[in-house]
Amino acid sequence: MKIPRAIQNVIESFEKLPGIGPKSAQRLTFYLLHVPQAELDRFAKALENLRKDTVLCSICFTVGDLDPCSICSDKQRDQTFICVVEQPLDVMALEKSGKFNGVYHVLHGKIDPLNNIGPDEIYIKQLVNRVQNGNVSEVVISTNPTMEGEATAMYIAKQLKISIDKKSDLFMKDLIISRIGRGLPTGADIEYADEITLQRAMDGRSKY
Amino acid sequence: MKIPRAIQNVIESFEKLPGIGPKSAQRLTFYLLHVPQAELDRFAKALENLRKDTVLCSICFTVGDLDPCSICSDKQRDQTFICVVEQPLDVMALEKSGKFNGVYHVLHGKIDPLNNIGPDEIYIKQLVNRVQNGNVSEVVISTNPTMEGEATAMYIAKQLKISIDKKSDLFMKDLIISRIGRGLPTGADIEYADEITLQRAMDGRSKY
Repeated sequence: MKIPRAIQNVIESFEKLPGIGPKSAQRLTFYLLHVPQAELDRFAKALENLRKDTVLCSICFTVGDLDPCSICSDKQRDQTFICVVEQPLDVMALEKSGKFNGVYHVLHGKIDPLNNIGPDEIYIKQLVNRVQNGNVSEVVISTNPTMEGEATAMYIAKQLKISIDKKSDLFMKDLIISRIGRGLPTGADIEYADEITLQRAMDGRSKY
Repeated sequence: MKIPRAIQNVIESFEKLPGIGPKSAQRLTFYLLHVPQAELDRFAKALENLRKDTVLCSICFTVGDLDPCSICSDKQRDQTFICVVEQPLDVMALEKSGKFNGVYHVLHGKIDPLNNIGPDEIYIKQLVNRVQNGNVSEVVISTNPTMEGEATAMYIAKQLKISIDKKSDLFMKDLIISRIGRGLPTGADIEYADEITLQRAMDGRSKY
């Protein structure tokens, strides 16, 4: 028995999503067959408008409905303190923590040579320009503590330092470049932590 | 930071799908932000047309693009041998096995009192009518071997027997009502099999 084209189309669309295999795609599609048409139309409309109704902020490159985004245009926030993240979702996670009152810079990826993503494919140049042109006191590089994320962080730190050295601006000399703290996550078990995490946790110990 | 409405809409649509939680919904949505608009439009169109371009077969109630479906209208298949399944996906799984050359009857669910699904909510009456009116030699009830699936199978078997007894048709007396074989699945480990599976495997032993 051939699967009808209309069903196969939806299955194929689901299969392209990350983390959804052929079986899950089938399951989701057949679930949707039992859903009212209005619900399907709403889902379809939302997908159609996803990119049309969102813009990249021209300052920090996060995804929002306004340009500049609500964070970059917020006068209450410290516009001289930039947190560099890989993805817009990281912005949301950090915002939820409520700890950071600066602004962001979204790279939209990480340097990942295995997937043909070099420094020019992500928004690193824009960050360097932003730091050179603007009034920036600190850049905290908050890429993920993965191999690619660490490499990206090191590359960015180096680029920023080169750009500081080029300029003889006194203010730039005071620019702080930092990396987000790494160590044991809350609720972790030292017994089960991996070696690198423990090394980083020792390096990153704080005084009482 | 508020998530833009356009993004929130897609997240909410994904969240309604079974097995997709808030985090996965976010991840899928932000993945789609990087996908070309043409791809999004294709996905949207597929969802919109999912129900419009499919029909329930009026004989077996499977989902297809024709009525009657390609199986019910296939003269090569044994139209007197009916396999009763819960969902259209079960039809596809059984078709892939290539073992069954009869026709199907899709219940679109199982009797599940906890979720307010009684015998009248699924296509049981239609099965009984089909057996009473048609030329049927065997009905193999292939609902899932779960609690609800077994209860549904027993209920269907009883209903079919009642309808046979009512009719004094000689042919109907010969109707075989069977249940799909239960036992150890291929690759299983007796050591780890649960008790009920082992009981069923003993009951269902076959002679060499």
